[in-house]
Amino acid sequence: MNYTVAAATEVLERTPTTLSALLADLSDDWLHATEGPETFSPFAVVGHLIDAERSNWMVRARQILDTSNAAPLPSFDRFEHRRRDAGRPIAELLDEFAVLRAASLTRLRGWRLSDEQLDRAATHPALGHTTLAELLAAWVVHDLGHIAQVARVMAKQYANAIGPWRQFLPIVDDRPVPVT
Amino acid sequence: MNYTVAAATEVLERTPTTLSALLADLSDDWLHATEGPETFSPFAVVGHLIDAERSNWMVRARQILDTSNAAPLPSFDRFEHRRRDAGRPIAELLDEFAVLRAASLTRLRGWRLSDEQLDRAATHPALGHTTLAELLAAWVVHDLGHIAQVARVMAKQYANAIGPWRQFLPIVDDRPVPVT
Repeated sequence: MNYTVAAATEVLERTPTTLSALLADLSDDWLHATEGPETFSPFAVVGHLIDAERSNWMVRARQILDTSNAAPLPSFDRFEHRRRDAGRPIAELLDEFAVLRAASLTRLRGWRLSDEQLDRAATHPALGHTTLAELLAAWVVHDLGHIAQVARVMAKQYANAIGPWRQFLPIVDDRPVPVT
Repeated sequence: MNYTVAAATEVLERTPTTLSALLADLSDDWLHATEGPETFSPFAVVGHLIDAERSNWMVRARQILDTSNAAPLPSFDRFEHRRRDAGRPIAELLDEFAVLRAASLTRLRGWRLSDEQLDRAATHPALGHTTLAELLAAWVVHDLGHIAQVARVMAKQYANAIGPWRQFLPIVDDRPVPVT
């Protein structure tokens, strides 16, 4: 599929409700489980998505649209959530993410981006040349990757409990994704 | 984590709402996408979960609890949904799955399984020796594996659209899970 704002928005607007369905009121054994050292728990994933919503996707998109600013895209602190979210209830994080996401999408739709704008180039600090459409497509895949991660991290907690079923359930042996 | 009915139920009861949040009213480009030949689309995943709800987990659990029946566990048709679901709206499938799942969990809770029952052994047609607890834990991991699959299949549709971001978004290169 080529990137379109309409199709991408269908996914982006579903992420807060999907994560709330999966994680609201879930017990801590599931919420704070990880898939190994330096990997995210489901709780940390929501914090990370809040960080990305505050300081990644729309901040960078706005800079690309600002033709007076040719600086490289700002880098993004992927660990701010650790300090901010310790001890917070998951419901509060889910609400915060939903509010931020809704605001992002209102702004994104309001831009009514043209093909020319979507093709506009920028320099990512690590990836080099990119376009606005690629950044906005990455936002969608980033959401979906973290939804898959939450499911995978939870599944791995039953790696031993499933006994011989492990050979039919490859998710428990999928490689972990490190936070860095 | 060791298997417990309580912790497992937390996950099992969230799967219908999670899939509804992710898939209800989604456009066909996303719903019917796959990750290659002989792999499930998000639409097919819901049909497969309906099949499993009808003829796999609880049917097998009941047989294990029936001490007069030492036959191998029945096998499970993983393709029934293809015939049954062609052309049906996704909302109808999601509703059917939610109703079946709620009924399964009402029955499961009603059994008030003892540790002795959870340890009870059975013979799986392909896996050999298993226990009721392992079967019930596999049910949870099966759900989570398919949630991750839906996210992965959708993410892969933007494998090209994300351009250089691909190196930061490994989900688009994760191996597909074949239906067989």
